Amino acid sequence: MNKLVNQINDLLLQSIPSSPLETNLEESMRYSLEAGGKRIRPVLLIETLKMLSKSDNYEKGIQTALALEMVHTYSLIHDDLPAMDNDDYRRGKLTNHKVYGEWKALLAGDALLTKAFHLISTDGSIDAQTRIKLVELLSDASGHLGMIGGQTLDMESENQNISLETLQHIHKEKTGALLTFAIMAAVTIVQPSDDVSELLEDYSQHLGLIFQIKDDLLDVYGDEDKLGKPVGSDEKNHKNTYVTLLGQDKTEQKLDYHVKQAEKCLEKLREASYDTSQLEYLTQLFYQRDH
Amino acid sequence: MNKLVNQINDLLLQSIPSSPLETNLEESMRYSLEAGGKRIRPVLLIETLKMLSKSDNYEKGIQTALALEMVHTYSLIHDDLPAMDNDDYRRGKLTNHKVYGEWKALLAGDALLTKAFHLISTDGSIDAQTRIKLVELLSDASGHLGMIGGQTLDMESENQNISLETLQHIHKEKTGALLTFAIMAAVTIVQPSDDVSELLEDYSQHLGLIFQIKDDLLDVYGDEDKLGKPVGSDEKNHKNTYVTLLGQDKTEQKLDYHVKQAEKCLEKLREASYDTSQLEYLTQLFYQRDH
Repeated sequence: MNKLVNQINDLLLQSIPSSPLETNLEESMRYSLEAGGKRIRPVLLIETLKMLSKSDNYEKGIQTALALEMVHTYSLIHDDLPAMDNDDYRRGKLTNHKVYGEWKALLAGDALLTKAFHLISTDGSIDAQTRIKLVELLSDASGHLGMIGGQTLDMESENQNISLETLQHIHKEKTGALLTFAIMAAVTIVQPSDDVSELLEDYSQHLGLIFQIKDDLLDVYGDEDKLGKPVGSDEKNHKNTYVTLLGQDKTEQKLDYHVKQAEKCLEKLREASYDTSQLEYLTQLFYQRDH
Repeated sequence: MNKLVNQINDLLLQSIPSSPLETNLEESMRYSLEAGGKRIRPVLLIETLKMLSKSDNYEKGIQTALALEMVHTYSLIHDDLPAMDNDDYRRGKLTNHKVYGEWKALLAGDALLTKAFHLISTDGSIDAQTRIKLVELLSDASGHLGMIGGQTLDMESENQNISLETLQHIHKEKTGALLTFAIMAAVTIVQPSDDVSELLEDYSQHLGLIFQIKDDLLDVYGDEDKLGKPVGSDEKNHKNTYVTLLGQDKTEQKLDYHVKQAEKCLEKLREASYDTSQLEYLTQLFYQRDH
């Protein structure tokens, strides 16, 4: 999987060559692409694709995987802006606007979002029908009914008491939608049976919840050095989390529940003779991660 | 044409229904869509489509026309933000961030851009091949090599002496790219002969320049009441314009030149038995406008 991550890193940078306009806009786009972490979204897409196609060739998924990481990266650049979370650092590196200034960070984010759709639309390895379905799914997952909608609800809920239902809604859209897209993009490209599609959609929902619940737990009980950020920031920022709403014990029980459900989905896929080893590994990675 | 503009206005608002998330994100998206002006981009697309298809039925172009106006609108919302031009008013109405706050204006812009690609991808009136070509053209025209690139170069050129060549480059990307898209989208949908495509591409380049040169002249010699904004703002903001680089006389000559060239393109289209009356009207509108 390390080899895959390295390849994703290389291709991300190559996909934004400097333009003849000779500004440093592209440099600022690459800066944030380079600051990336574990690339879980593109890796999830590629590993699901490899499993479904029973092949190590992932050519048909790589452009969409890069597009997905660009959408994720643009959302981080905009989230970090003074008008939003006003963060100076992300993963130990200065945020885009601290290096390139606010207006350029804003435009770099806009340009990465736009580039994502360009990448999918020009992907010659898949047919037009598949590409247009991927554009539809990605714009849905990242738009006002998906990621941006969840982000809006999250911002509006700060300093307010919300229900567990609203919290689930926020996470389903804000972080879940792109994770689900990763898996459903692979489904769109390979087109397995409806049963398998439904199992993977279920799996993606549980995986999204595992990711988010773990995030909330790490913010309270994590190791600052490993996280690269101070713990307790959710409480300080009056963020609603699973821990603040349910307490630690019930949150951990909920985490275990979703891990079990995710594993059940994978078990059924194994019964349908798919090699789920990489998705098992990713599930455990989401579950056991310490940063 | 008024009927068309009214229909565009209605459809723009209908295309962003409120979401079940119950925030006012969609309201803020509609606010800026509603604050729109003459809708020249979608009108240009539709009128070109009608001319090329020799029909009054423009069903195949309307979704793309709405998408184009959404991209234009998002770019205005982001341009008005304090990090960019910091404008409180646009066309006599408070700018989005003055009404909804900065972070929501940022997200409303992001959401409109995303929605544009969703609209095209779900347009059932045209085939997948055409839709994916439109996504490619729109992401190209509005991305880091198009509108955003031109906007970046424009921001970097403030308070600096630039060449006429750089100024042309800025305008070709910043305002020209979306106008060219309007016309080339109609070409993509109808697929006329290569000769006709090339004539229309030429025409779109001249039209873009007419639009921009006129803009620069109006900023110096326009009527404040009609413009709805103070004249002389380009000079005050140390913007490079055709007037500051060439002087009034040469700028007016240049404007006349591009109007003549645009008319030549239309003449050749008439010879190929197309009814160019609406495009002639639009050319004159760009040329003669007083706001």
